[in-house]
Amino acid sequence: MARATYHHGDLGPALIAAARRLVERAGPSGATVRAIAREADVTPAAPYHHFANRDAILASLATDGFAELGAAMQRAADRAPTGQALRRLQGAGVAYVRFAVRNPGLFRLMFSGMLTDRSTYPDLQQSATEAFRVLQHLLGDARDTDRGALPHPAALAAWSTVHGLAMLLIEGRLGEPPSERRAIRMARDVTRVLGVGLRTFAGSPSS
Amino acid sequence: MARATYHHGDLGPALIAAARRLVERAGPSGATVRAIAREADVTPAAPYHHFANRDAILASLATDGFAELGAAMQRAADRAPTGQALRRLQGAGVAYVRFAVRNPGLFRLMFSGMLTDRSTYPDLQQSATEAFRVLQHLLGDARDTDRGALPHPAALAAWSTVHGLAMLLIEGRLGEPPSERRAIRMARDVTRVLGVGLRTFAGSPSS
Repeated sequence: MARATYHHGDLGPALIAAARRLVERAGPSGATVRAIAREADVTPAAPYHHFANRDAILASLATDGFAELGAAMQRAADRAPTGQALRRLQGAGVAYVRFAVRNPGLFRLMFSGMLTDRSTYPDLQQSATEAFRVLQHLLGDARDTDRGALPHPAALAAWSTVHGLAMLLIEGRLGEPPSERRAIRMARDVTRVLGVGLRTFAGSPSS
Repeated sequence: MARATYHHGDLGPALIAAARRLVERAGPSGATVRAIAREADVTPAAPYHHFANRDAILASLATDGFAELGAAMQRAADRAPTGQALRRLQGAGVAYVRFAVRNPGLFRLMFSGMLTDRSTYPDLQQSATEAFRVLQHLLGDARDTDRGALPHPAALAAWSTVHGLAMLLIEGRLGEPPSERRAIRMARDVTRVLGVGLRTFAGSPSS
């Protein structure tokens, strides 16, 4: 059986793409190094040229996921006029929920807690922090939250709301299947409620 | 080696309690029928007198979990004066987050999606719906949401917000370890932001 061959530098991305397909099909537990190699059509040993182990592959995938999520939020926000802060934030919130519904396996992995060890995966933490900062910037609150202080209530409320809706949707708690259209309607609803609260709190200091 | 003996009717609760300890220690995957039997100090076959399989034990545990969560929210709400709707709702929201931080394994199981098949576990669905209704009633919105209609935006926003914060906390996305005190402060922060939005939306019809 012929194996796929990759130029130096292409194998890493091919393995990440294979892991992503597996995570969507079978969850993180289905994405073993062996299964990833098979999915990428390389020898079982090939992944170890690029990654120390399975968790390193999944951490790299989750890092990409946070970058993609942050970029999707930013693009959605930028489609609303500059002056309309709440419309921009709502766009980002809807994009967050849409990302989760389109990529439930990846989204679960990104927030699964199995990869939250800061010292082992600094790139992942950085990528996650940057995605959160998109929300913070949209709220006009660019303070660094990575220093032990509590996040600003408005930023924390915004993140919690879209994250909670995303999780409830992809785990089937709001009816199955979570159609994208229905998910987006719900995301508009909750970000509208949230927006009214944010209008009051976004400028105020944390208590 | 002596095995524990149970009166008829006591074995079921003992197995649920054993499953709960295992879920907290090792996650749902650690709670096999064999491990549950060992933890309850009964023979490996004994659980099958009460439950068809492992998922039936976990569904029963999750059903109890939703009842406990709903009761904790109601108790917390009832500690605030009757007329103070937002204080009551905030109490319930804080209780939701506290429950998650105190029982992260159980909370993950309850919302894991592995048990959301409505036809197989009707009691679980009923118990989950009743927990959500505690929030709905506190919002003055007692309409049935189980009929395909979108939930009321205010109720959905309230649930999403506390659920999102709970998940971000227990998965370590908001710093480790998520101390209960810090979790409660965050829960107060986000429910305060949410409350301002709810004041406007709780009475309005769904769009």
